[in-house]
Amino acid sequence: MARWQPHASERLVVAALDLFEEKGYEDTTVIEIAERAGLTKSTFFRHFPDKREVLFGGDTMAGLLAGGIADAPAAATPLEAVAHALDTVGREAFTTERREFGARRRAVIATTPELREREALKGLGLTAAMTEALERRGVPDPASRVAAQLGALVMALAYERWCEPGGGTEFGAAARQALREVQAATAAS
Amino acid sequence: MARWQPHASERLVVAALDLFEEKGYEDTTVIEIAERAGLTKSTFFRHFPDKREVLFGGDTMAGLLAGGIADAPAAATPLEAVAHALDTVGREAFTTERREFGARRRAVIATTPELREREALKGLGLTAAMTEALERRGVPDPASRVAAQLGALVMALAYERWCEPGGGTEFGAAARQALREVQAATAAS
Repeated sequence: MARWQPHASERLVVAALDLFEEKGYEDTTVIEIAERAGLTKSTFFRHFPDKREVLFGGDTMAGLLAGGIADAPAAATPLEAVAHALDTVGREAFTTERREFGARRRAVIATTPELREREALKGLGLTAAMTEALERRGVPDPASRVAAQLGALVMALAYERWCEPGGGTEFGAAARQALREVQAATAAS
Repeated sequence: MARWQPHASERLVVAALDLFEEKGYEDTTVIEIAERAGLTKSTFFRHFPDKREVLFGGDTMAGLLAGGIADAPAAATPLEAVAHALDTVGREAFTTERREFGARRRAVIATTPELREREALKGLGLTAAMTEALERRGVPDPASRVAAQLGALVMALAYERWCEPGGGTEFGAAARQALREVQAATAAS
């Protein structure tokens, strides 16, 4: 039976980011990531399907967004429900302690085409998860898709700003600010 | 010197779609596509980098959208410029003669995960091309990204409806209708 490994997933993510920075994504193997984390290859594969996925946290983010949309007050508009979900993401995932890690992660992804592609597809998955969560609240198509697309854009803008060194903005606050900008830009379109 | 092949690109696309329908995407080779089109493998690779790209028309669509945005009247809002580009797409690419082909293409992509992934990435490339074209018109970020994202959504909705058998809607008209719905949904968000 596999021994319980405290924080195995987080240790693997940190080890992977260290190695991607040191020797590049291409030249890093899953075995090296596991060794750096003091774990085995099979532990790696219990947490992630492949090397490309290790910086993307599996389905955690989709679950946070869907849960946040489901938990929003019944009277919330679609975009307010999305904003509620982004607050959840700020509290649970993009916390102040993780900001420096977020900035490093963002830099590695920006310079690795394979990771940029995975990030793009992950983003579409998050948009789909938000669309479905909005539809479960009774939001019809295409209003559900519009709110989810705008939500994905707000999330991307907020993540960029939250990561900025010395930015000092909390993710939730950055998301609210980005949402106001997106709404203003939408109205002017 | 390579002999000039009339409509080589279109013949390759039609041959590829026929074969993908008959034997599936996975089991079709580039050589078979070229043979079915009466062309050689090297002609295939002059037109497309790989098998995955053959249904996606290279950079044609990005060029049509960027050109259409650039050509929009100076006074057009960002979303009006995008609508102008979608009219161009309807006139130049998604014409009535191509509707049946569009419906078949859409069905093959829907059932092939690798093509769905390529389509998703293509869509992001189109959004980026629209964002850049809007920025060249002086539209600032994030208004440029908002209009491009809404434009991509309008384009996807219009394409779905244009393809529908017996739909009978012209692409340009479908795009205008989808744009009105997206604007209404945005205002209600």
